[in-house]
Order: sequence, then C-alpha cells, then structure tokens
Amino acid sequence: MNGNDRRWVPNLKDIQVAHYRIEPFIHRTPTITSKTLNSMTGAKLYFKCENLQKVGAFKFRGATNAVMMLSEKEAERGVATHSSGNHAQALALAARNRGIPAYIVMPETAPAVKVEAVRSYGAKITFCRPTLEARESELRKVVERTGAEFIHPYDDGRIISGQATAAVELLDDTEDLDIVMTPVGGGGLISGTSLAVKYISPETKVIGAEPENADDAFRSLRSGSLLPSEDPDTIADGLLTSLSELTFGIIKENVSSIVTVGEEFIVRAMKLFWERTKLIIEPSAAVPLGALLEKKMDVEGKRVGIILSGGNVDLKNLPWLRS
Amino acid sequence: MNGNDRRWVPNLKDIQVAHYRIEPFIHRTPTITSKTLNSMTGAKLYFKCENLQKVGAFKFRGATNAVMMLSEKEAERGVATHSSGNHAQALALAARNRGIPAYIVMPETAPAVKVEAVRSYGAKITFCRPTLEARESELRKVVERTGAEFIHPYDDGRIISGQATAAVELLDDTEDLDIVMTPVGGGGLISGTSLAVKYISPETKVIGAEPENADDAFRSLRSGSLLPSEDPDTIADGLLTSLSELTFGIIKENVSSIVTVGEEFIVRAMKLFWERTKLIIEPSAAVPLGALLEKKMDVEGKRVGIILSGGNVDLKNLPWLRS
Repeated sequence: MNGNDRRWVPNLKDIQVAHYRIEPFIHRTPTITSKTLNSMTGAKLYFKCENLQKVGAFKFRGATNAVMMLSEKEAERGVATHSSGNHAQALALAARNRGIPAYIVMPETAPAVKVEAVRSYGAKITFCRPTLEARESELRKVVERTGAEFIHPYDDGRIISGQATAAVELLDDTEDLDIVMTPVGGGGLISGTSLAVKYISPETKVIGAEPENADDAFRSLRSGSLLPSEDPDTIADGLLTSLSELTFGIIKENVSSIVTVGEEFIVRAMKLFWERTKLIIEPSAAVPLGALLEKKMDVEGKRVGIILSGGNVDLKNLPWLRS
Repeated sequence: MNGNDRRWVPNLKDIQVAHYRIEPFIHRTPTITSKTLNSMTGAKLYFKCENLQKVGAFKFRGATNAVMMLSEKEAERGVATHSSGNHAQALALAARNRGIPAYIVMPETAPAVKVEAVRSYGAKITFCRPTLEARESELRKVVERTGAEFIHPYDDGRIISGQATAAVELLDDTEDLDIVMTPVGGGGLISGTSLAVKYISPETKVIGAEPENADDAFRSLRSGSLLPSEDPDTIADGLLTSLSELTFGIIKENVSSIVTVGEEFIVRAMKLFWERTKLIIEPSAAVPLGALLEKKMDVEGKRVGIILSGGNVDLKNLPWLRS
C-alpha cells in the first residue's frame, strides 16, 4: 500500500485481515453440489453461493472491506462511486453499516428497481447522462463537493482483498480442488480469487470464464497487453466492463487461462442451474458452468470450484423468454 | 395399522420410525430466515426448504416411506399410482432406490417435462384420457395386470408418516415456534405436520393456507363435514386436489384453522420470496406467505415456521408474466 494509490496487489495477510474485518457483516455463504450437474459435466462441481450473499452478490465483500478500512477522518466524509449494478448496492449497504454517507452516481436510464434498491440503503443518488464521460465527470463533482472517498468497483487493492475472501471460504469448505473458476468482468473477483488460491492452495489452477461477446480478458491475455472491450454485448450484464492495468497484471501472473462462452450456453447454464438446484443465479454467474456445457475445457474427473457471482435478476425479463 | 387398510392415523412412533427409515434417502433440507420478510410481516419466519428436497418436493418423504415399508413380497411386484405431479416423480425415484418397478398412470395432456422427469427415474408410464375416471380405471387395470401396490398420494398412513418428518426436522432446527403453517391440497402434508407438532411441541398451533379458489379444506372445516372442491382453479396447481376422509379427520382434530389466500397474493408472495431469498419455490409453496402478506392472520411478534412444499416450476410460464 503506497500512500494514496489504491492500486496495490494484496498479499496473504491483506486477504486474511480483510476476511477477519468483514466477517461480522457478510454471510458465510454455503458451498453446494448437484449430482445431476456432476453427471452432465463429468466433473465434481462445488458452487460457492455468492448469490446468497447480502445485496445478492460477492461485491458486498469488497465494498465492506474498503469502507471498513477507512480512517475515522476519511470515513466521516463518506464514500462515492458510479455504478448502476451490484457495486452501487454493495457500497450503499456497507456505508450504512458504518453509519457514513454513500454518494452514488447512476445513469438516468438505470432500471427503477436498481435505483430503489440503492435508495433503500440510504444512499444519496445523483443522476447523469448514460455515458462513461458523464458518469466520471459527475462523480468528480460529487467528490469535490463532499470530500467523499471514491471507491472503484475493482481497480483497488481494498476491493480485491475483499473479493478474495469468497475463495478463502470455498477452499476452506472443500478439499483438493483441481480448478477454481470465476466469471470475468472488470477482474476484481478473479484477481482476488487467483491471489487467494496461489497463497492457500498453489497446486489449484484458476480459470476465468468470459462471454464471447465481451472477451477483453481473453484477448488481452493472448496478446499480452491490455485490450479493452469495444461495444461489448452480452446478457451477462455484470461482465460488460473491461480489465484495469491492476487486475490485468494480477491475472497475467496468476490465472492459467480464460475461456470464452457463447450466449446460448450462458442462457442454457443459467436455466439448468435454476431447474436443478432451485437457486436463482444471474446470467454472469452462469458463465463458468456455460463453459463446461460448451465443453470449452476438459474437466473429466476433476474437482472444480465455481464462484457464483450473484443472483440479481429481473424476473420479468428472463433470458430464455426473450425472442 | 389394520390389515390391508392403509388409511390409518400415525402415532409418534410411526413418525419417528419413518424418519429413521427414510433418512438415508432424503436430503435433510435447511431452515432459512430472511430479515426483509420478517420486517414486512412483523413476525419471525422460519422456512423449511422442501423445495431443496430430492425431486424438488416434500412428496419424496412420503413416497420413500411407503416404498421402504413394503414387505419383500409386496415390493417385488412394484408400486403404482396415477399422478401428473410431484407424487409421480417421488414414487418413481423411491421405487428406483429400492430397485423395484414403478407404474405411473399419467393423463395424455401432462406436460412433456413432467413425463420426461418420471421416465428419467425409470418408471413405466401408461397414458390415459385426462379425466379422473380414466385415470382410476387405467390404474385398476395396471394393478390387476402387475400386482403392484397402489400408493395413494395422501390417503395413506404410510405417506402421512413420511410427510410428517419435515415438521420433525423443522421443530428440531428452531425453538418455541408459536405457529407452523403449510399449504393444503389433499391434506397429506398438513395432516402429518399437525400430528408431529401435537406429539413433539403441543403448545405450537398448526394453521393451513389454501387458495381461495380451491378452498375445500376451509369450507369442510367450517361446516364440519367433507366438502370436496368443485372446479378448483388456482395457479397453485399442487393444491387442486381435495381432502380425503382420513386427512379431513386428522385436520379437524389437530389443525387450529385454515386461512384462504387470493391468487394475487400467492403470486406476489412467490415473486417476493424469489427476489429476497434467491430460492425458487412453486406457487403452492408461496400460499402461506401469501396469507401473511394478505394479513389473513395476526402474526405480529410471533415465531412462525413455514413448510415450503416444493420448487418445481415451469420457468417458461411464470405467473407474474401471464396476462
């Protein structure tokens, strides 16, 4: 951790302390298995249920860690971010748990249900036009006015340490995993996961799964330099963001490979998982299982941990009902 | 148990032995809570997740108990029933677990997905016209031809003892429940539940919840005599059947009251439960929570156990998407 730069790579102790720090606030989510999914894939699958995490997503781990790490002086001015997704809700609840303000910049096109969720946690919402520039410029204004601490959704060692704790629990609940898989969006989850696995179970491989239509991590890893997505388009709406230099660096060093998954297999995996486990997962969370259904990797006889990123779904707009 | 009459009322030992008998085959399902649902209802709710039971419903408990109670001689000729719902799947899997044949009579209009599920457990399916008469006459023929034992979905002490074991586990996982609620269809679940509660926690009340549009238990209890449903019509398709003399007798003696629930509140409860817990429940399972949302009973400050009957849902035909 050097000064004000939040872009640091967590070590084992950072992750362990993060876990200790956030434990009073998070759910220790269960790890589940399904005989049907095992026999369909030929592997032994262990699903870490972050869809059952507070706010319905692993994002609450990182946000809680970042908020609880602030000094008293930083904390009293609050935290801020721009997001229309799970990070906004996660940061809003984490701030409420500490009793400090959260300022969330959301595009004016954000679904009412997401706005309502953020508001219900007591956050102050500022709307802006739905472009990245508008979001960033609005956020800068909010931060200047309030002195709040900007908490980036993934380009931040505090966030990555927090996201890493899901893998810590998964490794604690299982034995001798050959592979751990996560979906890949901005890279916060897979960065944290790959570090936790390297420190705790170095013989286990970490493999990322990414939509074909938002494959910046796949292309970046292949080319060796950061290639952001251009016009990504996938039902896995949590994975539209691109890697940062920080997460790309961690992934390059610690992730064995990235596999890409077609939209059809993401939808098929999501529906199959709902039917067989009776657990709701969001499209992003279905991407690793989709990779197995699409036979993008050989997992025959392997023990595979899969981190389910979340369960926040618009129940009126399910992907298998779209034409 | 008198001779061949299966219509007997289980005692405590019957239920305890049933639990011991079926434990190797069933899941011990979790009991979960939700802060949001507690604050919306003013009660402390404990949901027993039989949606996570094998075949996705509590019915597997009763079917397993009935199949495993058969003598060697009875068992070798197999079991039979007519059903298009969860009982058919439950009986098929229970029979496969014992290695004996299951003969299932299904209406030719049964959804392909249900037929496939029954077939996947190795049952022999006979189709018939979609009337109760055709089902019963076809079943008689199957039983005459094969010598299989007819296992009724609820009018049977072996089934009721098995269904009672869900309440045994719920009482084991909680303390000092004021009320236990279940949905009411043919009455197998609530009969078993009310007996288990009377034997194990006699100060706890048992309350049934029934769709307004299939309210035979409500009307029967009020009038004091069995009044079957005529043309019941509800999205809670597991609750279309009417009580038998056996289940009505047990309910009359052991159930405090039956509350009825409007269709709108069943749908609302189902969607709310999905959103808040990320767990899939079928419409029938949402009826007790629907009663609380509709404020059909005063549960302020009460500790309420709710048995979720199952989680088998057609994901392409969700009730909040119907016009």
